[in-house]
Amino acid sequence: MMDIYIGLVHHPVRNRLGETVTTAVTNLDIHDLARAARTYDVRATYYVTPIEQQRSLVRRIITHWQEGDGAEFNPVRAVAFERTRVSEDVSEAILEIERETGHKPLTVVTGAQLIENTTSYNTLRQRIEDTEGSLLLLFGTGWGLTDEFINGCDKRLPGINAVSGRDDYNHLSVRSAVSIILDRLLGDRCTSHGRVA
Amino acid sequence: MMDIYIGLVHHPVRNRLGETVTTAVTNLDIHDLARAARTYDVRATYYVTPIEQQRSLVRRIITHWQEGDGAEFNPVRAVAFERTRVSEDVSEAILEIERETGHKPLTVVTGAQLIENTTSYNTLRQRIEDTEGSLLLLFGTGWGLTDEFINGCDKRLPGINAVSGRDDYNHLSVRSAVSIILDRLLGDRCTSHGRVA
Repeated sequence: MMDIYIGLVHHPVRNRLGETVTTAVTNLDIHDLARAARTYDVRATYYVTPIEQQRSLVRRIITHWQEGDGAEFNPVRAVAFERTRVSEDVSEAILEIERETGHKPLTVVTGAQLIENTTSYNTLRQRIEDTEGSLLLLFGTGWGLTDEFINGCDKRLPGINAVSGRDDYNHLSVRSAVSIILDRLLGDRCTSHGRVA
Repeated sequence: MMDIYIGLVHHPVRNRLGETVTTAVTNLDIHDLARAARTYDVRATYYVTPIEQQRSLVRRIITHWQEGDGAEFNPVRAVAFERTRVSEDVSEAILEIERETGHKPLTVVTGAQLIENTTSYNTLRQRIEDTEGSLLLLFGTGWGLTDEFINGCDKRLPGINAVSGRDDYNHLSVRSAVSIILDRLLGDRCTSHGRVA
């Protein structure tokens, strides 16, 4: 089984005008992603931003919940934060993962608008189960990753939709998107057909 | 196909000491749930709280994003908020759904700790696809719904876990849990085996 990592990318991403910008780290992303990542046994979540003050903010939040008053108030949260990291860019995260696992990670990008040249969730799920190695799932913030960034990744997953197809609205928060994609790739549903009545 | 509704219950729920309390409505829940609910074509999301000031806060947030500066800043968000509602308790939501759809909704409860007497996601998914009627998915806030509340519901879904089973950590945020459960019941994954290469 592959080792799974997440990268939440704050640069390069687009703003609502389509310009390339750096977004700010969101405190709640760290909380929700840490809990989801821990539930699905993700090895680490990287907050990717070129701004040192932002990386240092993430480190302070982690410390608060792991060592400070937060750890005493909510020990379950402390456990989740163990696997939260920062990196200056994606290359730095890739190098660290390679050092840690001995494998250069497969980079997989996701996005609401991705339609062409996509790998299905089931194909990737099977590969995760059957293969050694590591995989870095990359998510954009703001209005999404830039085309150049997307083109530099190994695989792309299609946007998430409802089966009903009655609607083409697809504007999930990154917190929802990460949770759903972890479940599609790593959740117990597909193997539990009829397991419980 | 059944009409799907969500209820986010702020009372009766437990605090971390196991006492029955009323939690505060969280602004970010409204944003994330509205977007997830709209993506999966949920007919409405109810914020259930006996405290009138809290219901009025939810109404003010909806108005801001639908009519105020928010609608101009982010019209996509305005669309999501169309289906956000409040109710004093679950009975009120049930009555409103019955009036709207002509069917008393099946009440389905979810929770990290539910193991016994559960209905599998696939069984419920099939029922949603094959049946007329309506379904109200109920989620607890705080440390979860009270036992009494759970026992009063028609069906219960099992807690969400990773297939790896390497770990029994299961402390998702309600934002993650709602997103994942909507995807398990209504997402396009199960029918898209091999649809995209």
